[in-house]
Amino acid sequence: MDIFSEIDQMQRQASILTRAGKTIGFVPTMGYLHEGHLSLIRRSRAENDITVVSIFVNPIQFGPNEDLDRYPRDIEGDIEKLRALNVDVLFLPSMKEMYPEGYKTYVIVEGLSDKLCGAFRPGHFRGVTTVVLKLFNIVKPTRAYFGLKDFQQTLIIKQMVRDLNMDIQIIACPTIREHDGLAMSSRNKYLTEEERQGAGIVYRALLNAAEKLKEGAGFKEAASTLRETLKSSPHIREIQYASVYDPETLDDLTDVDVKIYKKPEVVLAVALYYGNARLIDNLLVKLR
Amino acid sequence: MDIFSEIDQMQRQASILTRAGKTIGFVPTMGYLHEGHLSLIRRSRAENDITVVSIFVNPIQFGPNEDLDRYPRDIEGDIEKLRALNVDVLFLPSMKEMYPEGYKTYVIVEGLSDKLCGAFRPGHFRGVTTVVLKLFNIVKPTRAYFGLKDFQQTLIIKQMVRDLNMDIQIIACPTIREHDGLAMSSRNKYLTEEERQGAGIVYRALLNAAEKLKEGAGFKEAASTLRETLKSSPHIREIQYASVYDPETLDDLTDVDVKIYKKPEVVLAVALYYGNARLIDNLLVKLR
Repeated sequence: MDIFSEIDQMQRQASILTRAGKTIGFVPTMGYLHEGHLSLIRRSRAENDITVVSIFVNPIQFGPNEDLDRYPRDIEGDIEKLRALNVDVLFLPSMKEMYPEGYKTYVIVEGLSDKLCGAFRPGHFRGVTTVVLKLFNIVKPTRAYFGLKDFQQTLIIKQMVRDLNMDIQIIACPTIREHDGLAMSSRNKYLTEEERQGAGIVYRALLNAAEKLKEGAGFKEAASTLRETLKSSPHIREIQYASVYDPETLDDLTDVDVKIYKKPEVVLAVALYYGNARLIDNLLVKLR
Repeated sequence: MDIFSEIDQMQRQASILTRAGKTIGFVPTMGYLHEGHLSLIRRSRAENDITVVSIFVNPIQFGPNEDLDRYPRDIEGDIEKLRALNVDVLFLPSMKEMYPEGYKTYVIVEGLSDKLCGAFRPGHFRGVTTVVLKLFNIVKPTRAYFGLKDFQQTLIIKQMVRDLNMDIQIIACPTIREHDGLAMSSRNKYLTEEERQGAGIVYRALLNAAEKLKEGAGFKEAASTLRETLKSSPHIREIQYASVYDPETLDDLTDVDVKIYKKPEVVLAVALYYGNARLIDNLLVKLR
């Protein structure tokens, strides 16, 4: 596995591969790799000639009071996992390489970036779209892989790629879960053992609400079920959002009559503090 | 000459050329081509295997009270000029092709975009950087050519390309002038015959101020000379800005002591209404 820490090296290699007609699959990550990341990498390996993984904890997507400094890191362990999966290239740039002095350019996706997580993390998605665009220009992928656990992020990146006419296929992959349903996330490390044991409640709450919808309940009732289930856990400190949303616009559907809603699917989505960990999860539900 | 009006056609062609190892030179324009544009095209022809020119009057870089509707157009004449220069591809997209319904993504270069023209045309440079990024993704150029008449635009695009790690060389080309020094611009069409005859004053004002600097005058005195010369014309309705600027930061240098200023160059820049035409011009001046 090649490990490139300089943008020039990575970009030159990507150009050579592109000219040789090779397809490049790309999995951008912030490291501390778990089974969710690995599932994306396996899919990229299966679908492309070359697989590039990046590890970069992107400072500009963290707010001033967020967990940038304590975000979990394990480069040695990550490299071992990537080697075991026969990843071709690890791109591992420094902060200074990505954002040199005098850096000034940002990419924004209006509307979608202000909803759900965006309402609680101002500037977060601007940081995400900016770094993803930079990484795409450096790695020059044919296909890029994102996990549906970050449903809003994937939606925003698809919109960016479409709007900016980037010649890249965005592939959204299913959320990988622990045995009790907890969505895999590097931030699960913040949970104490006791908290970890109870954290399956988030997925159970999504399943309960989905069940309501399948039984023909309205969006308001499903949203109530979601919130009520979550509130039964003593560890949940703050529910930032938990409702039924339009999976294309991210509009809250609570006050929409299910009979008027014409799309085939909704997404149940939550963000909350479970102990010290901010957890997000979601579930796409087919209505018909 | 191929004429593509669909993004897919253009992008597919660009991919084929890139894979075949061809270099692509790109000249983005808003049409109504004049000798300034043609000089960029000739340079691109000389330096690249393939030259692509785009014509697209980009609505999102015009403010609500600006001249989008009356911006001069002459597609037939433009095509003739491009054929005469043996341009390989004309990319001629529609508004709907570039900004389909639900379009949401914008690129901003902070700081530089709010100065000079940006202060008088809010959102203008956001529109420019967004469309240029889109065009770059569609045309996939090796080199792109911009005229120095639009000094601030060229500076901002260079910054964007550097910040976003775009693998494209930006080439800034000298301003082409009429015999009396008036910088070539599609907007010169707005001048009446009488106004046109006097419009050489803009360049003369720049030359007078440059002369002052060469004689050792301070920035304040040079800026005064610039403004005083301009004010001698009866057709100048409004001077939006006219001063001495740092060519990297675009900071106004009027109150800076020339002895303290360490860079080798300054730029004299003006924007004004000459009759009904908003004209801009500038001159780089070597200090030492």
